[in-house]
Amino acid sequence: MTNPLKLATASSHGRPGVVACAAYAAGRRVAEIPIEEAGEWSRKPGHVVWIGLHEPDLELLRQLQREFNLHELAIEDALKAHQRPKLEQYGDALFVVARTAQMFDGRIAFGETHLFVGKGYVVSVRHGASTSYKPVRERCEAAQKAFSEGEDFILYAILDFIVDNYIPVIQTIQDEVEEIEDSILGETATQIHVTRLYQLRRDLLRLRNAAVPLVEVCRRLEQPGLPGIDPVMSPLFRDVSDHIRRVQEEIESLREVLAFAFETSLMTGQAQQTEITRKLASWAAILAVPTAVAGLYGMNFDVMPELHWKYGYAVVLVVILTVCGWLYWRFRRNGWL
Amino acid sequence: MTNPLKLATASSHGRPGVVACAAYAAGRRVAEIPIEEAGEWSRKPGHVVWIGLHEPDLELLRQLQREFNLHELAIEDALKAHQRPKLEQYGDALFVVARTAQMFDGRIAFGETHLFVGKGYVVSVRHGASTSYKPVRERCEAAQKAFSEGEDFILYAILDFIVDNYIPVIQTIQDEVEEIEDSILGETATQIHVTRLYQLRRDLLRLRNAAVPLVEVCRRLEQPGLPGIDPVMSPLFRDVSDHIRRVQEEIESLREVLAFAFETSLMTGQAQQTEITRKLASWAAILAVPTAVAGLYGMNFDVMPELHWKYGYAVVLVVILTVCGWLYWRFRRNGWL
Amino acid sequence: MTNPLKLATASSHGRPGVVACAAYAAGRRVAEIPIEEAGEWSRKPGHVVWIGLHEPDLELLRQLQREFNLHELAIEDALKAHQRPKLEQYGDALFVVARTAQMFDGRIAFGETHLFVGKGYVVSVRHGASTSYKPVRERCEAAQKAFSEGEDFILYAILDFIVDNYIPVIQTIQDEVEEIEDSILGETATQIHVTRLYQLRRDLLRLRNAAVPLVEVCRRLEQPGLPGIDPVMSPLFRDVSDHIRRVQEEIESLREVLAFAFETSLMTGQAQQTEITRKLASWAAILAVPTAVAGLYGMNFDVMPELHWKYGYAVVLVVILTVCGWLYWRFRRNGWL
Amino acid sequence: MTNPLKLATASSHGRPGVVACAAYAAGRRVAEIPIEEAGEWSRKPGHVVWIGLHEPDLELLRQLQREFNLHELAIEDALKAHQRPKLEQYGDALFVVARTAQMFDGRIAFGETHLFVGKGYVVSVRHGASTSYKPVRERCEAAQKAFSEGEDFILYAILDFIVDNYIPVIQTIQDEVEEIEDSILGETATQIHVTRLYQLRRDLLRLRNAAVPLVEVCRRLEQPGLPGIDPVMSPLFRDVSDHIRRVQEEIESLREVLAFAFETSLMTGQAQQTEITRKLASWAAILAVPTAVAGLYGMNFDVMPELHWKYGYAVVLVVILTVCGWLYWRFRRNGWL
Amino acid sequence: MTNPLKLATASSHGRPGVVACAAYAAGRRVAEIPIEEAGEWSRKPGHVVWIGLHEPDLELLRQLQREFNLHELAIEDALKAHQRPKLEQYGDALFVVARTAQMFDGRIAFGETHLFVGKGYVVSVRHGASTSYKPVRERCEAAQKAFSEGEDFILYAILDFIVDNYIPVIQTIQDEVEEIEDSILGETATQIHVTRLYQLRRDLLRLRNAAVPLVEVCRRLEQPGLPGIDPVMSPLFRDVSDHIRRVQEEIESLREVLAFAFETSLMTGQAQQTEITRKLASWAAILAVPTAVAGLYGMNFDVMPELHWKYGYAVVLVVILTVCGWLYWRFRRNGWL
Repeated sequence: MTNPLKLATASSHGRPGVVACAAYAAGRRVAEIPIEEAGEWSRKPGHVVWIGLHEPDLELLRQLQREFNLHELAIEDALKAHQRPKLEQYGDALFVVARTAQMFDGRIAFGETHLFVGKGYVVSVRHGASTSYKPVRERCEAAQKAFSEGEDFILYAILDFIVDNYIPVIQTIQDEVEEIEDSILGETATQIHVTRLYQLRRDLLRLRNAAVPLVEVCRRLEQPGLPGIDPVMSPLFRDVSDHIRRVQEEIESLREVLAFAFETSLMTGQAQQTEITRKLASWAAILAVPTAVAGLYGMNFDVMPELHWKYGYAVVLVVILTVCGWLYWRFRRNGWL
Repeated sequence: MTNPLKLATASSHGRPGVVACAAYAAGRRVAEIPIEEAGEWSRKPGHVVWIGLHEPDLELLRQLQREFNLHELAIEDALKAHQRPKLEQYGDALFVVARTAQMFDGRIAFGETHLFVGKGYVVSVRHGASTSYKPVRERCEAAQKAFSEGEDFILYAILDFIVDNYIPVIQTIQDEVEEIEDSILGETATQIHVTRLYQLRRDLLRLRNAAVPLVEVCRRLEQPGLPGIDPVMSPLFRDVSDHIRRVQEEIESLREVLAFAFETSLMTGQAQQTEITRKLASWAAILAVPTAVAGLYGMNFDVMPELHWKYGYAVVLVVILTVCGWLYWRFRRNGWL
Repeated sequence: MTNPLKLATASSHGRPGVVACAAYAAGRRVAEIPIEEAGEWSRKPGHVVWIGLHEPDLELLRQLQREFNLHELAIEDALKAHQRPKLEQYGDALFVVARTAQMFDGRIAFGETHLFVGKGYVVSVRHGASTSYKPVRERCEAAQKAFSEGEDFILYAILDFIVDNYIPVIQTIQDEVEEIEDSILGETATQIHVTRLYQLRRDLLRLRNAAVPLVEVCRRLEQPGLPGIDPVMSPLFRDVSDHIRRVQEEIESLREVLAFAFETSLMTGQAQQTEITRKLASWAAILAVPTAVAGLYGMNFDVMPELHWKYGYAVVLVVILTVCGWLYWRFRRNGWL
Repeated sequence: MTNPLKLATASSHGRPGVVACAAYAAGRRVAEIPIEEAGEWSRKPGHVVWIGLHEPDLELLRQLQREFNLHELAIEDALKAHQRPKLEQYGDALFVVARTAQMFDGRIAFGETHLFVGKGYVVSVRHGASTSYKPVRERCEAAQKAFSEGEDFILYAILDFIVDNYIPVIQTIQDEVEEIEDSILGETATQIHVTRLYQLRRDLLRLRNAAVPLVEVCRRLEQPGLPGIDPVMSPLFRDVSDHIRRVQEEIESLREVLAFAFETSLMTGQAQQTEITRKLASWAAILAVPTAVAGLYGMNFDVMPELHWKYGYAVVLVVILTVCGWLYWRFRRNGWL
Repeated sequence: MTNPLKLATASSHGRPGVVACAAYAAGRRVAEIPIEEAGEWSRKPGHVVWIGLHEPDLELLRQLQREFNLHELAIEDALKAHQRPKLEQYGDALFVVARTAQMFDGRIAFGETHLFVGKGYVVSVRHGASTSYKPVRERCEAAQKAFSEGEDFILYAILDFIVDNYIPVIQTIQDEVEEIEDSILGETATQIHVTRLYQLRRDLLRLRNAAVPLVEVCRRLEQPGLPGIDPVMSPLFRDVSDHIRRVQEEIESLREVLAFAFETSLMTGQAQQTEITRKLASWAAILAVPTAVAGLYGMNFDVMPELHWKYGYAVVLVVILTVCGWLYWRFRRNGWL
């Protein structure tokens, strides 16, 4: 699967892996800066450096480590993806891992974002399928006053963006579930629906693993005591918390609904089979009548008076048709046919 | 679905979106006031302003924000529905979100109510299908003495009203479950029942998501420490807590009962199929007798003495009837037919 | 369902709704008193008034409220049944709600008991199907020394009685489950068993809802800090706690056992169906032999040498019987017939 | 079920119900003493009295109560079995209830042991099927140095013995599960296996109820603060804790495995039925060929040229055999036969 | 099953059971030492003795006990395997139990490692199938600076190695699950897949029991307060914690996926059966036509005009073929054939 998102974002800056690198003061972009000067800018009072990376190589991460004095373990984590969403505190710096999700070709594409947040800097490292944080940057630059709060506001904005991006994914799944629901209840479920139900369950499982640990991350961010997180930001992080809990609730609901759909599908399938067996039994009974009667008059006994009666054949035909017709009417009436 | 509730309530006041706006003192209605003077009235000692809104627009909310100095995030939440039930504290003001439920055309219609409660004012914002709080207002005005407690009593009265409204919804579901139960156990379950069972499970899931988070909201209200909540109100909020817990218990019970009904339905379906297979097998066996016997005497061998015996035909007929009758009696006896 | 329990207890005292009303001192019954003097007696040092009511009307409750200064919300609760088991503290008085259960006509009949316990008085209010507390009263009067402890001992005695009454209910269900178990494992399960299993599951659910919240009530009673509960009573309440926990454990076990029985029943049903299908298939195969062979020799070709052979008919009969016999023996051997 | 264990142990001492009664000092048995002197011996400094009872009568328990000043409720509990495993503290004495389990005739036999532990004495009361604690006594007497620690060491030794006795029970179940597993996966599962699976699930449920509450008992024993439990014993009780947790883990695993086995058995049963239906369908198709063809040539039309063709019969036979053979080969190839 | 791992590691040192025994100072290997001098070396300032054992006998463990003054219970545990993963603190020494897992012949082979960690020494005892810790030793010797931290770093390195070794096991299971998934959804599931699904579920259960208790061990190691664990090691242990939590999450996901696969397989099986029943019914209907018609014209009535019509036979054949063809087309169209 060639991912256009990846191609689009990886090369938008001079150095490969660097998507954006700018210094801000009082909520205003002061300068586009090279990575090499990032540490210097971040130490200027009232300045915040915001760097966006996409699948950086080790060398680039090492340079950032030197600039901002990042912790060795965080760098190792940022190099390889496949981390659980978490919040680590290394001295005065925070390291946040979040997993992103978006619909891509009818299936969910997962990505990972690692955030280094410290005094005067925010570094976001994206892995896999994940949209650029350009819209976040633009929104921050627009909300100049709030943005002037500094690096914790950027952290908030990115987390908010990630959580908001779960919504359309859930919406898509919800729509599809409702569609399958209709076909299950309308007795037209096929193997394709079974397959789709199965895939949706797997996808939801992955989505839950991606999203739910963020609840804990947000819970810690809304409580006081983390370095660099201003207590006035508390309501904002609580707002993100709320959204991610709503996402969690939706996921759990969908999981239950899919389980219900499975069970219902089993029952519908059983009913279907019963109906077919009934139909089979009905037609077998109806067709057994001419076979049995005709068999009798096909016997070769010397003395079989009916055979020599002029209207014998006609009467037998009428009897057969009458009995078959009566059976058909009966089966029809009690719903077997 | 055109919702008459919506139409009925949205226009009962001068300004669109405003359902009621009055000032109270010592539990007595002092004046119907325009929104613009609400802030002023709320600051008079011993006065409480109670405003009821229905799906207000942004402008109206902004005005209220100015009057009562409401928090930005709460205003944003109040504008769009789809919040989880919660209790937020912004400075000295409380922001409560609750979801309402009522039966509408045989299905549950959900609504949302947002409450702003602060020193001297209560603002209720309704979204979607939810009955007007006019009865609450009337009841409060009747219970003058208790009402004079102020804004926390109004909060209690509205929450109590919301929780009480869950009861008939649950009652309706309960009745329907019992009806389906009878048809499942009476072996007359059809696809319609399966569909209905499925819908009930989904509805209960939604009802649970709407109601259960209120338990936490009430738990916090009954404990001391929230601004503007008088400790003497504690028993009242504990009473609401008790009711919502009872609602929760009923929902959980119904969920289990529906799961039992599903399983039982599966077993009944299986038994039904077994019965049909038995019937099919029995009739196949009975009808195979004339076919086989007649087939034998339909053979064209030169030497078949029975064929030339005078009573051959009659004896064969008797034998066939006897065997068939005996089989029928046997199948009847062991319950296959 | 006319409930004889109700009729028997409701009229055993002068005033309707009052079952008993007596004053005790040092564990000895001092006087049968009218309700109107109850408050006065309860305030005499060393005296305890114990009143037993059955579905009282509002007027009677109001009078008690005046006598003992009971809380408004407790009175409201006591008037209507359908409360969750709980322990409320209103000032120096306790309000306890418990649900009772007893077997009645093969199904569980549930009742509710509300207890007001304060300095010098205990009022028990029974609703629905529940035995009189006369045996408790007699037992207390017999255990004079322990009884002299006062109102907390009465509370203990009633709770102990309620919890002990769950045991025969559970025992009855257990017996019935074992009976159904035998019929399921012995492959004679019928629709009646399915229906009974379903009803037992529902009843157990109700019993759990009635009994399990009492665990929390007892837990609070065994801990110090409640008004009027002497710490020396702690081991007694811990004993009730233990019993109710045992009841809870039994209920959970029975619930699991019923779930197992359901699953096993599904498997047994499946096995039964497989067996019938096998029988059907076997007989179809056996009977297809004469039909096919006879069909062949019923053909009217001019040249069919076997037909003119003297022993043709006999040989064919022998062949048919041999093949059918061999098939029968084979099916028998591998257990299909 | 006559239980030989019971007969063997109940009469090994002079008085009925008393299995052993000895005084120890510094880990050495000082004297076999009569019950009547037990209290006296227990108060001698450095002495411990260890009494073993089996289903004692009330009189015997009353005497012990007088000797060691035991709590009334503990005596009542010790008289009747059917207690939950628990640890009660009455003043300076401990009362411990544990349930024992051992294999007996292929099913688990459960017993109960009550332990009174106080300054200078340990009384063990056994109910139902449970091995004598003679081996424990011997082991303690052998480990003289550790034993000199006193009554808490005896408590540890008995609990350790009880927990160790769960292991062979679990081992037996495990072996049986593996055996059933093989037969389920090898498609030879029968009704007997279903019955056995069901019984194993019930037994495991009982075993869990017996064993798991001991986790809590041990947890409290390993923590400081209980009277008469020396903190140096902590690692020993933690060891028992560890073993019982391991037992718990094994039980939970077995429960899950049995649930898996049930589900797998359902699937195997379904597959079996599908296979039979396929076989039935295949043979029905094969046998329908001669029936249909022979039927055609059994018709009595005047003009049927094939009938008069010399090789007609032979050709028809060949055609029938060819088609049947071809069908057989096809069904064989795609696995239906 | 002869385990080559065992053979390979058990004899790599002079004494049987001893795999390696070396003293380190400042992260550098100072000397290969005999067991007898281990205690002495461990007490030299700045020195750490690291001993690797594989299934040692009692004598060897007793010697180590004397050298490092190990606790009796830990020695007993280390002698027999089958411990739950745990962390015990005996005075100033830690005793850690972990279970290892690796793929071996398509199934998971489990082992156990016991670690004694105290001032100046680390002893690792391996049981069952588990790779040697030689790679850990080499990695430690390479990371000289970190290694100079001492015995807690060795503990970290071994735990990290154990946890990392779970990953390929999970990966293998994941691959197999995906393979089975494809065959289930592609309707080609066979009894072999059912068996494999069952085995995977059992294996995952065992893996969970082996891995998940390590979460608790790591959680305690990352918190301050354990003897000999330097607080600067906290981030490293938190890193191991993170990995084991990720392993846990993967295991839980796989367990759910396998449960989904089971359910889906049941539905697919049901659908398959329905399809076969449909096919059977269709062919039975088609073949019943010639049988019934031919039966009619096989009757021996004197007066059957069609029989004497010249084109009778041909017309009947055409009628039969037409009806059969029409039925075939109809069944084809609605998907029954």
